[in-house]
Amino acid sequence: MTRSAHRIAFGQRLRDLRQEHDWASQEAFAHHVGLDRTYVSGLERGTRNPTLDVLVKLAHGLDVTPSELLSTVK
Amino acid sequence: MTRSAHRIAFGQRLRDLRQEHDWASQEAFAHHVGLDRTYVSGLERGTRNPTLDVLVKLAHGLDVTPSELLSTVK
Repeated sequence: MTRSAHRIAFGQRLRDLRQEHDWASQEAFAHHVGLDRTYVSGLERGTRNPTLDVLVKLAHGLDVTPSELLSTVK
Repeated sequence: MTRSAHRIAFGQRLRDLRQEHDWASQEAFAHHVGLDRTYVSGLERGTRNPTLDVLVKLAHGLDVTPSELLSTVK
C-alpha cells in the first residue's frame, strides 16, 4: 500500500480531528461512522486512499465539512 | 452508478472550476490531468466516486487546493 505526502497529511489531519472531537479510540470512532477499525487505522497511517463517499462520511462523523477535513492536504 | 447530493455538488464545482480556469473542453482538461475524458464527464455528472489521489490530481490541475475543490460539498 502506497503512502504519499497527501495521504500522510490527510491521515494526520484525520487523527487530530478524531482526538480533538473526543473519540479517544479508533474503534469507537470507526463504529460511529460505520467503517472498520483496521480501515480507519490505515487511513490515519496514510496507507489508504479514501473515496469522496468515505470522506463525506468521515467529515459528518467529525462535525466538520469535507473541505475542513482536507484543509492540510496539498 | 449512484448519484448522491455530495457527488452532484462536487461535480458541479469541478465543472465550474474547469470552465473558470479556461479549460473549455472536458477532453483537454482530462488530458491535462491524465484522466480519461469519460471519467471526467462522469465526475462532473456526479456519477463517479473519486478517490483522494484523484481529488489531489484534479486540484493540482486546476491550481486550487483539495480543500477548495470540495468547498461546496456538504
